[in-house]
Amino acid sequence: MTLDLAKVEATLLASAEAAAAHTLPLFRTPLDVDNKYAVGFDPVTEADRGAETVIRAVIAEQFPDHAIIGEEWGNSGESPYSWIIDPIDGTRSFISGVPVWGTLIGFAHQGVAIAGIMSQPFIGETFLAVPGRSTYRRAGETTALRTSGQTDLAPARVFTTTPNLFKGEHWGKWEAIESATRLQRFGTDCYGYALLAAGQADLVIEPRLQTYDIAALVPIIREAGGAIACWDGSEPTSGGNVVAAATPELLEKALALVNAS
Amino acid sequence: MTLDLAKVEATLLASAEAAAAHTLPLFRTPLDVDNKYAVGFDPVTEADRGAETVIRAVIAEQFPDHAIIGEEWGNSGESPYSWIIDPIDGTRSFISGVPVWGTLIGFAHQGVAIAGIMSQPFIGETFLAVPGRSTYRRAGETTALRTSGQTDLAPARVFTTTPNLFKGEHWGKWEAIESATRLQRFGTDCYGYALLAAGQADLVIEPRLQTYDIAALVPIIREAGGAIACWDGSEPTSGGNVVAAATPELLEKALALVNAS
Repeated sequence: MTLDLAKVEATLLASAEAAAAHTLPLFRTPLDVDNKYAVGFDPVTEADRGAETVIRAVIAEQFPDHAIIGEEWGNSGESPYSWIIDPIDGTRSFISGVPVWGTLIGFAHQGVAIAGIMSQPFIGETFLAVPGRSTYRRAGETTALRTSGQTDLAPARVFTTTPNLFKGEHWGKWEAIESATRLQRFGTDCYGYALLAAGQADLVIEPRLQTYDIAALVPIIREAGGAIACWDGSEPTSGGNVVAAATPELLEKALALVNAS
Repeated sequence: MTLDLAKVEATLLASAEAAAAHTLPLFRTPLDVDNKYAVGFDPVTEADRGAETVIRAVIAEQFPDHAIIGEEWGNSGESPYSWIIDPIDGTRSFISGVPVWGTLIGFAHQGVAIAGIMSQPFIGETFLAVPGRSTYRRAGETTALRTSGQTDLAPARVFTTTPNLFKGEHWGKWEAIESATRLQRFGTDCYGYALLAAGQADLVIEPRLQTYDIAALVPIIREAGGAIACWDGSEPTSGGNVVAAATPELLEKALALVNAS
C-alpha cells in the first residue's frame, strides 16, 4: 500500500474546512442567562459533535481503510494508518469567546503522527504539516513554519493551559519550569504548540494529554525544527505528560529539569 | 465648549487605525536567537512608541486643547477632557504571538471615561463606545455589544491576566473568586474586558491597574450594560484594583466577596 501524501494533505485541509462550518456559527453564540434556548443547549457539545461528524465523513470517503480516533465518537477501523481528531481543542476558550481554540486532525503511521493540521477558523489561520514541511496559511498566503531555535531555558517563553493542571503531584515540576524561564503564558491550549512551531514560544509543557490533544501538533512542531516528547522521553503521539521545545537541546534541558523536580 | 461626539468617535477610529500601521508589522516578528538584529531590538518597545506617537498626533490635530496621558510618552496638556492611551495592552501576548493584545484609547471628562476604543488589528476587531452606545466592528459589520446579563457568581466565567497578579496580600481574594465561580481564564489582558462587553465573560478582576490599562474599557463595558469599579467602590478610570461585571448585581456580589476575603 503506497501512501499518497498529497491526498493526505488535501484531506486534512478539506476536513478542517468542513469542520469550520459547524464550529464558527456556534462560536460566541449569545447565551444570555434569560435566553430560553439556554436550557439544554450546549454550544460546545453541538459544535464538537457536528464538526467531528463531518471530519470523519471526509476522511472515510478518501481513506475508507484507515482507522479513525475521535474525541466525540470514539475509535473505528483497524489499520497501520490512523486519523486522530479533536474537533474543538480549547473548550474553555471556545465558551468564553477567546479565539485561541483549534480544530486538530492528526495523521499517524504505526502510532507516530507524521502529518497534521491545526485550524483556527475565526482568525483564519491554518498550521499544517506533512513529511518534510510545516506551513502557516492565512488569507491565501503560505509561509514556512520555523521554531525560534532557542536552546536555553533562561530566556525561554513557556506556555501551558493553566498552572492548575499541575496541582497535586506535578506542582513542583511547574514551579521548577516557572523559576527557570523568562516568561509564562496561560490559556493557550493547542494554540501554544502552534505558536511554538511559528517561533513565538520556546517551550510548552502539559500533563495528562489525550492522543487527540496532541497528535496533530507533533508533526507541526517536528517539521518546523522543534522537538516533542513525553516526560519519560517516549513518543507523545498517543498522549501523556508532554513537553514541546523549539530545539532538541532545549527539550533535553526541560526534560532534565522536569524529571529532577 | 460643546463637545462634538461624532468627532470624538472618528478620532478614536482614526487613531487606532494609524496605530495598527506601527503594531502589526512588528507582531510575530521573527526573533531567532541567532538573529543579528535581535541585539538591542525590542519589537514591543518599537511598536509601543511608534503607535503612541501617531495616536497622539491624530488626537492633537483634532483636539489641540485636550490633555493626553500615554503609557510611553507621559502627560501633556491641561483640560477637563483627556485622552488616555495604551498603545499595546498585553505585552506578554504581543511578544509571544498571541493575538489578544489591544490598542486602548480612552476619552475622559473630568476623570470619568465616557468613550473609548479597544482595537485588535491582527484579528481585525474593534470594540468602541461613545455615550449611549457600545459596538463591535469586524469585516465592515457593526453590531451592538451587550453583556451576558449574568447576576450570580456561581455560573460566572471569570477572566484575569494571571493568578500571579494576586500573589502576596491579594492571594486570598483570588482564591475566593476562583472557588465561587464556574470557569477561570488567564492571559487575556484587555481582551477579557472586551469579551465581557460582548457577553462572553461575566467577571474580570485585576489588581494594580494603571489608568491607561483600563480607561478605554470603562465605557465599552458600561454602555454594553456592564458595571465596573475599584474594589473600594470608587470610579476606576484612573486605575487601581478593578472588578468589571456583566451586571451591577454581579458587581455588588463580587465586591462583597473580594472585600470579605
